[in-house]
Amino acid sequence: MNYKMIGYVLSKVLMIEAGLMILPLLCSIIYGESVAWAFLLTMVLLNITAVIMGYKQPKNTVIYAKEGFVIVALAWVLMSAFGTIPFVVTGTIPNPIDAFFEVVSGFTTTGASILTDIEVVSKGLLFWRSFTHWIGGMGVLVFILAILPLSKNNNMHIMRAEVPGPSVGKLVPKMRDTAVILYKIYLAMTIIEIIILCICGMPLFDSILHSFGTAGTGGFGIKNSSIGYYNSPIIDVVIGTFMILFGINFNIFYYILIGKHRDAFGSEELRCYLGIILVAVVLIAINITPYYGSILEALRYAYFQVASIITTTGYSTVNYDLWPEFSKTVIILLMFTGACAGSTGGGIKIGRIITLVKQQIKEIYRMVHPRTVTALRLDGKSVDKDMLIGIQVFFVMYMFILVLGTLLISLDGYDFTTNFTAVLSCISNIGPGLNLVGPAANFSLFSDFSTFLLSFIMLAGRLELFPLLILFIPSLYKH
Amino acid sequence: MNYKMIGYVLSKVLMIEAGLMILPLLCSIIYGESVAWAFLLTMVLLNITAVIMGYKQPKNTVIYAKEGFVIVALAWVLMSAFGTIPFVVTGTIPNPIDAFFEVVSGFTTTGASILTDIEVVSKGLLFWRSFTHWIGGMGVLVFILAILPLSKNNNMHIMRAEVPGPSVGKLVPKMRDTAVILYKIYLAMTIIEIIILCICGMPLFDSILHSFGTAGTGGFGIKNSSIGYYNSPIIDVVIGTFMILFGINFNIFYYILIGKHRDAFGSEELRCYLGIILVAVVLIAINITPYYGSILEALRYAYFQVASIITTTGYSTVNYDLWPEFSKTVIILLMFTGACAGSTGGGIKIGRIITLVKQQIKEIYRMVHPRTVTALRLDGKSVDKDMLIGIQVFFVMYMFILVLGTLLISLDGYDFTTNFTAVLSCISNIGPGLNLVGPAANFSLFSDFSTFLLSFIMLAGRLELFPLLILFIPSLYKH
Repeated sequence: MNYKMIGYVLSKVLMIEAGLMILPLLCSIIYGESVAWAFLLTMVLLNITAVIMGYKQPKNTVIYAKEGFVIVALAWVLMSAFGTIPFVVTGTIPNPIDAFFEVVSGFTTTGASILTDIEVVSKGLLFWRSFTHWIGGMGVLVFILAILPLSKNNNMHIMRAEVPGPSVGKLVPKMRDTAVILYKIYLAMTIIEIIILCICGMPLFDSILHSFGTAGTGGFGIKNSSIGYYNSPIIDVVIGTFMILFGINFNIFYYILIGKHRDAFGSEELRCYLGIILVAVVLIAINITPYYGSILEALRYAYFQVASIITTTGYSTVNYDLWPEFSKTVIILLMFTGACAGSTGGGIKIGRIITLVKQQIKEIYRMVHPRTVTALRLDGKSVDKDMLIGIQVFFVMYMFILVLGTLLISLDGYDFTTNFTAVLSCISNIGPGLNLVGPAANFSLFSDFSTFLLSFIMLAGRLELFPLLILFIPSLYKH
Repeated sequence: MNYKMIGYVLSKVLMIEAGLMILPLLCSIIYGESVAWAFLLTMVLLNITAVIMGYKQPKNTVIYAKEGFVIVALAWVLMSAFGTIPFVVTGTIPNPIDAFFEVVSGFTTTGASILTDIEVVSKGLLFWRSFTHWIGGMGVLVFILAILPLSKNNNMHIMRAEVPGPSVGKLVPKMRDTAVILYKIYLAMTIIEIIILCICGMPLFDSILHSFGTAGTGGFGIKNSSIGYYNSPIIDVVIGTFMILFGINFNIFYYILIGKHRDAFGSEELRCYLGIILVAVVLIAINITPYYGSILEALRYAYFQVASIITTTGYSTVNYDLWPEFSKTVIILLMFTGACAGSTGGGIKIGRIITLVKQQIKEIYRMVHPRTVTALRLDGKSVDKDMLIGIQVFFVMYMFILVLGTLLISLDGYDFTTNFTAVLSCISNIGPGLNLVGPAANFSLFSDFSTFLLSFIMLAGRLELFPLLILFIPSLYKH
């Protein structure tokens, strides 16, 4: 293990975090809030730690896959730990474990909160809280790759560990340029959403923060009733549509920009993603129409909620926990699937689901025709056997963590639906679940043990399970 | 497809079923019950159908894997359909869909019931109901293999499709001899249990029926409070221990009989199975001690319930739905794992779980040491790559059916815990679930659609998913 190089990259991460904190600091200064000192203190601590950890690039800059995973895992833990300081020192969230949960929920773009009244929190902290979604959505290490000159080989290992999805596609030959393109698209789309929301009548501050939450598919609201507060059909449609857009693989936007429309719209994952959304919206709308009087009203709420859950954002306009059981179960299914690979969304990802379904069909087919050899194809290309095993292992691990997590938090004594959907919501980085962690509730009910465990599960979900788990392999630390 | 041969084997299955019905017929004659005519009627219908379907062996007796699957799938559906006749014509279960559910639940050794009061059912029907567990436990086609002279090749394909577990181990060179050995062990253990239960003070009739339920890991009770009715610690321990025994791979008993003790006790699956039971009993006992006053009492109930659920039997001595959430979640976990491969139990099977866990660890290890090639080993032998993929595909399919089943039965409007555990209980062939399908309740609440779907899920679970699913592949029927 190249510890010096790990320290060096991590020190850069902390410095970047200090730099990013300038925005919430400015926000609190603009609103004349005393909370500004908390951001200043955190920035100082971040910089001191960064200097201690290794300011200068070491001579040996070569890192391998394992270092890539370790860097990403530790970066996310450290960023979250330092990110809690403003919440703790201002007394907004006095319990450090709760604060850690809240910030991890931010960076991992989960959006689950332990705050029982969000409307009393200072604007500076609200800004920081939603800003963590924006940072975490595309990934802070992708950001570093975009601005720092690291060697080619290093970029690949780090990017692979942080970007969601079974494979990382390079858009252009250089990984660094790919990172820059991704961030440019991300920033542009966020700004467009902010402008449109302002036009729709949402205050600028609210528009910025909700756009952060949409872009990162995070879901932290700034009102106790989330987006339902504005009670505006047009705002519902705008945010709903942007959530769907941010759930699409960013490569597709790039293909559209450079005119490769066939590559963009031919994507099986994209078609399947939009198909699932369509079917889910129609099914739920039919199911909940009796609750809202008209099919149009039902469609409005169904559209927003389906978009919010499948993209793993977690905003809500109504308390879907009061919907009929069928609609709630559709919501739970969407919590599993998640959005497209290479988007800012979480979950298993549509691309993986398609591959698994195709393999199921292939295996059943093979029983009828044992001598026919058929390759598994996605977007016309045959799927590599190693990638297939990787996807299966991911799926199994995902289910294991879901089931074991449910067991461990059941020690708190809440009901099965609450525990199961809480863990599912955390591992898929959604935010709300059902029952006691439904959209009208929050995660403040859990014990410190469960809160800490759920934080870990959120990190595991965002980093797609493996980077965090390898930290527990003892031989990692041997020479 | 060799339709003639399929018809021939199926006609044998129906004749065997008619033959097996002599036992409940005798039972109802002994108790002087008028229900005897219903059994006679069914036997006549079975024989007529058998003759129509193809009494004589066709010239071309060669069958391949697909015919093996089709035979097994159709055999189970037909047996269940004919098995409902005595329930329907006597008016005990007037709704044919409910009756189909009940009989499928019997043959698949699930033990879930739609009967709200079991104690009013005639003894002949109770006998038939529990006897289906015994037949289904080891498998009717294995029985046919044991008594019918089919060609070598045919035996293998049929046996592979019916015997649970990722692989079928031949005990002796001839498949037919293996089937005979398995049935001899099965019969001997059942008789021993009957004798011991009689010694413990249980009436003979009750002893026989409960032994059928234990041997097949079925779980149909003949009292509304299941085994709790007898309120006897010694009966609890006897049935608990026999359940655990019937959850062990039958090959192990054979190894013990022929003196190969090292092969028997060296089995990783056996050790893991017993280890899980030990841990689960201790955890639950500690958790429920406050409910029962003493740790000894708690151990008694925990032992019985853990044995009942992990072996997928489904007997109960207490209403575990009233236990604390942690214990209930342990129960849910055991519903997933199930018993050992090659036993009469259902579920995913411990052997598959071990293989999946080992592969998870191997994959994480491979990230740290990408150049180290390690083979996945079970019982000292390296696991074949095809078998590994088979296990993964099984796991994914299992989860898909669980999730989709939960969605479909949610149309009935019951809560998530009820729906989820009902489907889990059916696919793992357990019997009771939680909440509205808990051990003190039954499955009578579901609509006809859900009841039929759950019957299908039970069959899919017992036949390990694939045999039933290939019936939906259109090209199966093409020439």
